[in-house]
Amino acid sequence: MACYLGLDLGGTNVKAGLLDDTARVLAKISTPTHAEHGPDAVIEAMIEAGKTVAAHAGVPLEQIDAVGIGSPGPMDLDAGVIRDMPNLPGWDHVPLRDRIATGLGRPTVLENDANAAAFGEYWAGAGRDPKIHHLVMLTLGTGIGTGIIIDGVLLHGSNSLGAEGGHMILVPDGRRCGCGQRGCLEAYASASNTATRAIEALEAGHDGTTSALASLRRAQAGRLTAKDIFDAAKTGDTLATEIAEQTANYLGIACASLCRLFDPQMIVFAGGMILAGDYLFEMIREAFARHTWKLVKDHVRIVPAELGNDAGFIGAAAVARDADQRGRLHAPLTSRKRLTR
Amino acid sequence: MACYLGLDLGGTNVKAGLLDDTARVLAKISTPTHAEHGPDAVIEAMIEAGKTVAAHAGVPLEQIDAVGIGSPGPMDLDAGVIRDMPNLPGWDHVPLRDRIATGLGRPTVLENDANAAAFGEYWAGAGRDPKIHHLVMLTLGTGIGTGIIIDGVLLHGSNSLGAEGGHMILVPDGRRCGCGQRGCLEAYASASNTATRAIEALEAGHDGTTSALASLRRAQAGRLTAKDIFDAAKTGDTLATEIAEQTANYLGIACASLCRLFDPQMIVFAGGMILAGDYLFEMIREAFARHTWKLVKDHVRIVPAELGNDAGFIGAAAVARDADQRGRLHAPLTSRKRLTR
Repeated sequence: MACYLGLDLGGTNVKAGLLDDTARVLAKISTPTHAEHGPDAVIEAMIEAGKTVAAHAGVPLEQIDAVGIGSPGPMDLDAGVIRDMPNLPGWDHVPLRDRIATGLGRPTVLENDANAAAFGEYWAGAGRDPKIHHLVMLTLGTGIGTGIIIDGVLLHGSNSLGAEGGHMILVPDGRRCGCGQRGCLEAYASASNTATRAIEALEAGHDGTTSALASLRRAQAGRLTAKDIFDAAKTGDTLATEIAEQTANYLGIACASLCRLFDPQMIVFAGGMILAGDYLFEMIREAFARHTWKLVKDHVRIVPAELGNDAGFIGAAAVARDADQRGRLHAPLTSRKRLTR
Repeated sequence: MACYLGLDLGGTNVKAGLLDDTARVLAKISTPTHAEHGPDAVIEAMIEAGKTVAAHAGVPLEQIDAVGIGSPGPMDLDAGVIRDMPNLPGWDHVPLRDRIATGLGRPTVLENDANAAAFGEYWAGAGRDPKIHHLVMLTLGTGIGTGIIIDGVLLHGSNSLGAEGGHMILVPDGRRCGCGQRGCLEAYASASNTATRAIEALEAGHDGTTSALASLRRAQAGRLTAKDIFDAAKTGDTLATEIAEQTANYLGIACASLCRLFDPQMIVFAGGMILAGDYLFEMIREAFARHTWKLVKDHVRIVPAELGNDAGFIGAAAVARDADQRGRLHAPLTSRKRLTR
């Protein structure tokens, strides 16, 4: 049976997993990235992780059909090159794909980590229903990562810079975003910014004397997390409920816009914030129903991701498998049939 | 040489054009739609228009490689069926594609009119540069029609309801839109709503005594058009300038969001409003530069459409040609290679 290796490059850990063609995980491992030692050390750690999971599964490297890498950072997908790595030192146009391919001796494909995670959910997670081929995934973390699958194909854009749904402008001239825009979805509804909005409300004196968030924040040296907000909201805390409802409201508006543009069958939310569970999802679905058009009934399903911490390497393996199935492992992405002019 | 017939179904006229493989128009015609007589009469008019242009060009019907239809109305593209036609009576699940195919005896493809127009600009208009394969087009009219081309393929979505960029939500809980949402791009920046915003400003007493728009509106029985606004703005009228700048500002914000999602090489604006020319386009480009992110320099070109009144049938012919080139004239759209699960 065909067999795929997924490598998930994170700032702290490299996760590797070997999967068979039915998405069964044959072996997996998590190992430190050693980002502080620069790209060579990181690439070495990735290659070693790949060799280790193959050995654990008892699969010789040459029986691996393809390797997929899910990586952060702006990249040139056609060339397989990482242009830059915002939080890791020394990455400047590193040919990550070819170095991993050489190190493991197997055909390798590179993908953006948010895209890979979405593709993993499409293959083997929340979107695995074989009737689903149009799926949008938003990962709520420090930022909001996005993966968009259109008729079974990941959206990349002309310079691998598309599918940045976290930077849709939701509020003209609104909150400043790290990207330089104002009013991005991410500036309101990421896990980090949900917590930041609560801190700002406390500092503005809003409900600061009565909300449980005020004392919690003091106990945590001034810090709050999205989990703190949702936990307090579930106990009925007024400020926390308001912040949580605002987050869900922004996410519901974003879902409406994403439906108008992509008409997906499913919108999947991932990231730690989804641990807030039905409480969060019911609010998002209600906000979506309030904001979406009335011309046609929406059938989109708004659901949590299912792959958890394994999403990265499962998605990377899914991308490798897809390239293999399409016969594109050795072809540049641009080899597809286009209009002749 | 290959030869394609494009049929553009409008509420008032059916436009038909016969094109060769280099997008040269061999013959064209415009004939009344006869929408008031129902779908049978409209379909007959379309078939007759096709036969007439073929005769004018001296091309026997059997030498036409394929026919493309650009049509308004919600539709099922896979089935070739018009579900409904908001402004034309009697259209209820009409198999338009197959009836035209039977009437002309040629393979026929159906496409949404906004998508077809975008595909025409991609083939033979503003986007004809052979290096361009990622293009978004917005047509500014009563509403804002949108066509989105990703790596040479039109975006349709799971129920042919995608690519409705006019209904991205730009202002949460903003102006009511005909679609039932609030704050849609279309509710602010379509040609009609640009005029409506000026009328509302006059009625609110804003600059009502000094703006040239006030007297113009009285002379036009209470009506204003987007052209009136842009003409007055170019003469320095304060209110008109403000309204025009707001429209450009909303369009610039929309361009930023579209770039984050689709990373296109080109954004094309079409519709009568683009006759405002450089005055409008400079304002849109400035607004885009103000609102877009600073992480990476944007290289997108924001330009006017070039095909004018012929865009509809040229685009329909382009869609037919594309289906022919891909060998998809007789295959359902869903026959593309997808993930096996």
